[in-house]
Amino acid sequence: MLFIGVIGNGDCSPAVAAVAEEVGRRLAERGAAVVCGGLGGVMEAACRGAKSAGGLTIGILPGDSRCHANRYVDIPIVTGLGEARNVLVVKSAQAVVAVGGKYGTLSEIAVALKNGVPVVGINTWRLQRDDRWDVGIEVAGTPGEAVERAISLARERT
Amino acid sequence: MLFIGVIGNGDCSPAVAAVAEEVGRRLAERGAAVVCGGLGGVMEAACRGAKSAGGLTIGILPGDSRCHANRYVDIPIVTGLGEARNVLVVKSAQAVVAVGGKYGTLSEIAVALKNGVPVVGINTWRLQRDDRWDVGIEVAGTPGEAVERAISLARERT
Amino acid sequence: MLFIGVIGNGDCSPAVAAVAEEVGRRLAERGAAVVCGGLGGVMEAACRGAKSAGGLTIGILPGDSRCHANRYVDIPIVTGLGEARNVLVVKSAQAVVAVGGKYGTLSEIAVALKNGVPVVGINTWRLQRDDRWDVGIEVAGTPGEAVERAISLARERT
Amino acid sequence: MLFIGVIGNGDCSPAVAAVAEEVGRRLAERGAAVVCGGLGGVMEAACRGAKSAGGLTIGILPGDSRCHANRYVDIPIVTGLGEARNVLVVKSAQAVVAVGGKYGTLSEIAVALKNGVPVVGINTWRLQRDDRWDVGIEVAGTPGEAVERAISLARERT
Repeated sequence: MLFIGVIGNGDCSPAVAAVAEEVGRRLAERGAAVVCGGLGGVMEAACRGAKSAGGLTIGILPGDSRCHANRYVDIPIVTGLGEARNVLVVKSAQAVVAVGGKYGTLSEIAVALKNGVPVVGINTWRLQRDDRWDVGIEVAGTPGEAVERAISLARERT
Repeated sequence: MLFIGVIGNGDCSPAVAAVAEEVGRRLAERGAAVVCGGLGGVMEAACRGAKSAGGLTIGILPGDSRCHANRYVDIPIVTGLGEARNVLVVKSAQAVVAVGGKYGTLSEIAVALKNGVPVVGINTWRLQRDDRWDVGIEVAGTPGEAVERAISLARERT
Repeated sequence: MLFIGVIGNGDCSPAVAAVAEEVGRRLAERGAAVVCGGLGGVMEAACRGAKSAGGLTIGILPGDSRCHANRYVDIPIVTGLGEARNVLVVKSAQAVVAVGGKYGTLSEIAVALKNGVPVVGINTWRLQRDDRWDVGIEVAGTPGEAVERAISLARERT
Repeated sequence: MLFIGVIGNGDCSPAVAAVAEEVGRRLAERGAAVVCGGLGGVMEAACRGAKSAGGLTIGILPGDSRCHANRYVDIPIVTGLGEARNVLVVKSAQAVVAVGGKYGTLSEIAVALKNGVPVVGINTWRLQRDDRWDVGIEVAGTPGEAVERAISLARERT
């Protein structure tokens, strides 16, 4: 089974949630498990999408209680690590889809790229160093494109 | 679904492994998922037992690679945290069964007791403070007894 | 410079605090820095003792704010890791003095012993496996004895 | 005492090292302690600069041994957390100076901005979201400017 991370903000617009939900649903349809931070916003939408297609969802939680997981999480991992749990979401994924996102998502993208975990982004950060655009994040235009690319990149690694 | 931790040494005798395997098998028969550290010894035996009965196994790994999980782990969580991952095994479980164990297992028992996670022990540590025996660890004589007690204690908490 | 951990409960009796304070003072007099969890009880008393003798104190905090450090901490390390920070207190010390303590202290003792960090205990846990007493913790009768032993054991390792 | 983080790559050019060394020296001259990841490259250069001016240096190490600290680290914190230790470097600092840097540094910048820790950058990442430049990182042209700005921002927070 492939494990694909879905990262994004814990508080997001309905439009962003719709994208995340489709990402989750398509991952499940392709037989991949969703790994995420287990809370609301993009995380909840991705889990909801995955469950709508009978998928498996793993939520790696920052706090000390499984009660904080959104209702679509099958496997809650309780870390008590606060934000340091972001590193675990990324390392436990074979590829990551970033949907929108703020600074927390940026930190996950950076950890993924540092660790060689492929990142596919939809409307997410663009990064520049020394006046050159960084090409670490693969840009996808649609949830379907993002999911196909993430699964393909994850398979190349195994 | 209940999540029950199984903790013990990563390198154990065949007799201890047989106990851990029966613990894993019985947990799966009761519908509980096995949460463990994902490596060898007691962890591998518990996962093997769980899979023999069609159960679900979660391995919270200390290193940076999913490759280090034993072959019976369904859901590898890659932490890169080293021994600090022991805290996550305990916090992600609703009760813990300790089988034998050395200092690493003792640290997990202590974290569990500190966090109010019930601990059932088979041939494990006994603890004394101020010349009095600590009664935090419930003692079980057999794998069957340990599993029934752990499930019962986990249910009381939810 | 030697770094010696002082571990114990965050909420302790005046008698236990007096012991911890003397441990901290004697460590400072011997030129060793105190490493601790940075909060109250034994941690605060040890830091107060160290500062009374012009020592250096390091507090490895579980929360997200340096404001939670006791007032005698010179170097607050802010981890946000919750209890997983206990592992860091132990690993950052070259030997550890345990003063009294409950389950949290037991987890630190266990992590220390697992990692080969010497542990000297004053009125702390006694551990038994297979009906035999574990001799990992060196027992000291007084703060002075504990400090001399801890410094000696730390020096042997370097 | 102010604690200012210096972040950047563990392997850097002599030109970048010279910048980091001047940042460290100027922080020490202003009475601020340097908090860093304790290894080579920018971290070592910043510590060397700080020590040349009699400053205090704290190295929060990813591995399990204090031996991996560069020789200019006064206070080694041994975490065993791998990359998750980056979060601790940032949280233990009252402001952060980023010198150059790759994906690891980017993750630290992101964690800092998420937590409200001010970031001053010298030749580091530029970030864009929704075709707008993110203004979270304050840009400094020289080490002197970066240090003055970081100290000023850190003071505003206390």
